[in-house]
Amino acid sequence: MISPTYVDVKTAADRLADHAVRTPLLVARNLSERLGAEIWMKAENLQRTNSFKFRGAYNAIALLSEDDRQKGVVAASSGNHAQGVAAAAQLFGISATIIMPSDAPVTKIDRTKALGAQVVFYDRENQDRDTLMHELGQREGRPIIPPYNHSDVIAGQGTVGLEIAQDMNAMGKAPDRVLVCTGGGGLTAGVALAIHHYFPNTIIHSCEPEGFDDYARSLKAGQPQKNERSSGSICDAILTNGPGSIGFEINHKLLSEGLVFRDQDALNAMRYAFNYERLVLEPGGAAALASVMVHGENWKGETVVVVLSGGNVDRDIFQRAIQSD
Amino acid sequence: MISPTYVDVKTAADRLADHAVRTPLLVARNLSERLGAEIWMKAENLQRTNSFKFRGAYNAIALLSEDDRQKGVVAASSGNHAQGVAAAAQLFGISATIIMPSDAPVTKIDRTKALGAQVVFYDRENQDRDTLMHELGQREGRPIIPPYNHSDVIAGQGTVGLEIAQDMNAMGKAPDRVLVCTGGGGLTAGVALAIHHYFPNTIIHSCEPEGFDDYARSLKAGQPQKNERSSGSICDAILTNGPGSIGFEINHKLLSEGLVFRDQDALNAMRYAFNYERLVLEPGGAAALASVMVHGENWKGETVVVVLSGGNVDRDIFQRAIQSD
Repeated sequence: MISPTYVDVKTAADRLADHAVRTPLLVARNLSERLGAEIWMKAENLQRTNSFKFRGAYNAIALLSEDDRQKGVVAASSGNHAQGVAAAAQLFGISATIIMPSDAPVTKIDRTKALGAQVVFYDRENQDRDTLMHELGQREGRPIIPPYNHSDVIAGQGTVGLEIAQDMNAMGKAPDRVLVCTGGGGLTAGVALAIHHYFPNTIIHSCEPEGFDDYARSLKAGQPQKNERSSGSICDAILTNGPGSIGFEINHKLLSEGLVFRDQDALNAMRYAFNYERLVLEPGGAAALASVMVHGENWKGETVVVVLSGGNVDRDIFQRAIQSD
Repeated sequence: MISPTYVDVKTAADRLADHAVRTPLLVARNLSERLGAEIWMKAENLQRTNSFKFRGAYNAIALLSEDDRQKGVVAASSGNHAQGVAAAAQLFGISATIIMPSDAPVTKIDRTKALGAQVVFYDRENQDRDTLMHELGQREGRPIIPPYNHSDVIAGQGTVGLEIAQDMNAMGKAPDRVLVCTGGGGLTAGVALAIHHYFPNTIIHSCEPEGFDDYARSLKAGQPQKNERSSGSICDAILTNGPGSIGFEINHKLLSEGLVFRDQDALNAMRYAFNYERLVLEPGGAAALASVMVHGENWKGETVVVVLSGGNVDRDIFQRAIQSD
């Protein structure tokens, strides 16, 4: 499959204009003061379905041929891509079948069903969701909307970066760094395309939980590295086997080093967002914020943008976060 | 004191442009579907100091004479106006003394102090804060920034309505109704001025908790009515004795009936905002959302805007809200 370019991100933005939320870029005033830097947050937890995933899903479904689209789509997801695909399919009036891990947050399962999708469960430890997804698609002759390893999905996610770049430009600012929550690397690649187009000197970091630092290691090695585990972090939204090949082709050219944080850092970031920004984040959606809180001490005077990629958190985890100080 | 007009709101917006957040107007997708209406939320919980109060405080301090301003300001507040005044005073490099009830949320007291203000406590049941405020101002010869009964404060809060009107206009929409969280009526009056200027046929509602429905009764009676109690609702941000005279002069001309909700409705609205909008609201800041959830059944097909006026909630109350289903 062909690698997407900035032009694909730009046309995706036109396609999404009437359907996606143009989410706000908000200054994190308290954290900025603490770090002596200027920290901005792209609040994709306020996106349709409460994560950025709607963007890529809608763009990919829009770009299917009318014949293919009418067959209905198949996807695999821990929950955010599931809702993105379900919402986009609903807008196009087509059916969607989503393969989800049986231990996905209840919130995500319920919301996906509420958006009219059919949910099929798999066992995260013993089954490979990509294999299941491709088998199901082939058996039923329906197109697949993969969560990250797909050019049109990456281009759609890239509109997050395009909006950041446009808003920064409008304020006469240029980001020194952009931090992106990283699972398979689709959002990261899309954002990198857009940011690099506007600001070629901006440093772009992937952000991953300890034990799932495939991107950090892959960037260092210059080729895709796998994770040893497939579960065991609270950051369910960004746990993947390893980088998607299409995204990695982009990211290994445009990214600086990958940042790593601990689960407790994600909880701390969620608590900060609750206390000072009055925003609800899920652990994986707090990855970039957690990373700037951990690594930002040395970035004094810089302008830093963090993507808050999602807010689909169950009540119990959220309470754990706001109580954990 | 002279009643503010639309022109005062417009010039306040110019004054605030570099300092206040232009908060997003977000669609409440889930609630819209439930009610068969189109519900939009003006997210002032994302404002500087996490409530709309910064707007009026900054505008009023900006409009003091340089001589007066340098004396430092005095204010009285349950916590949101306190933070607004403290933040604005800090920007102007002047001192601020704030009279706060001893039972104000800890969050609000801490934040006010963190913004460099001096806090003086009073007993909500046995002391009148307005008397205390005026005494202190007079004794020290310092200008007072009242929470709502002040023309420049009302004009500043009105920029919330101006932004709503501008955003609605840009989308080619006109609100059928605008609902505002109402304490002393300053925000409500300011919003009414701006909305009425753009959309003279829009119905504007005040929103108050049961037992503190002074505005609902005042609008019905055609003259200011007092509340019997001064505490006893969780909506601490909007508990006042009765309407401010300057705001009432505007509101009794521009408002439709006042809406009333119960404390449990505010908790339900906070839970909705957590679950579906990924926003953190305080009880008083959820007043308009609670009101549309209670009264909106009969507004099918309408376009309704609710102001989410603040998010400064203590953890315990927030947990009570998200657990209360």
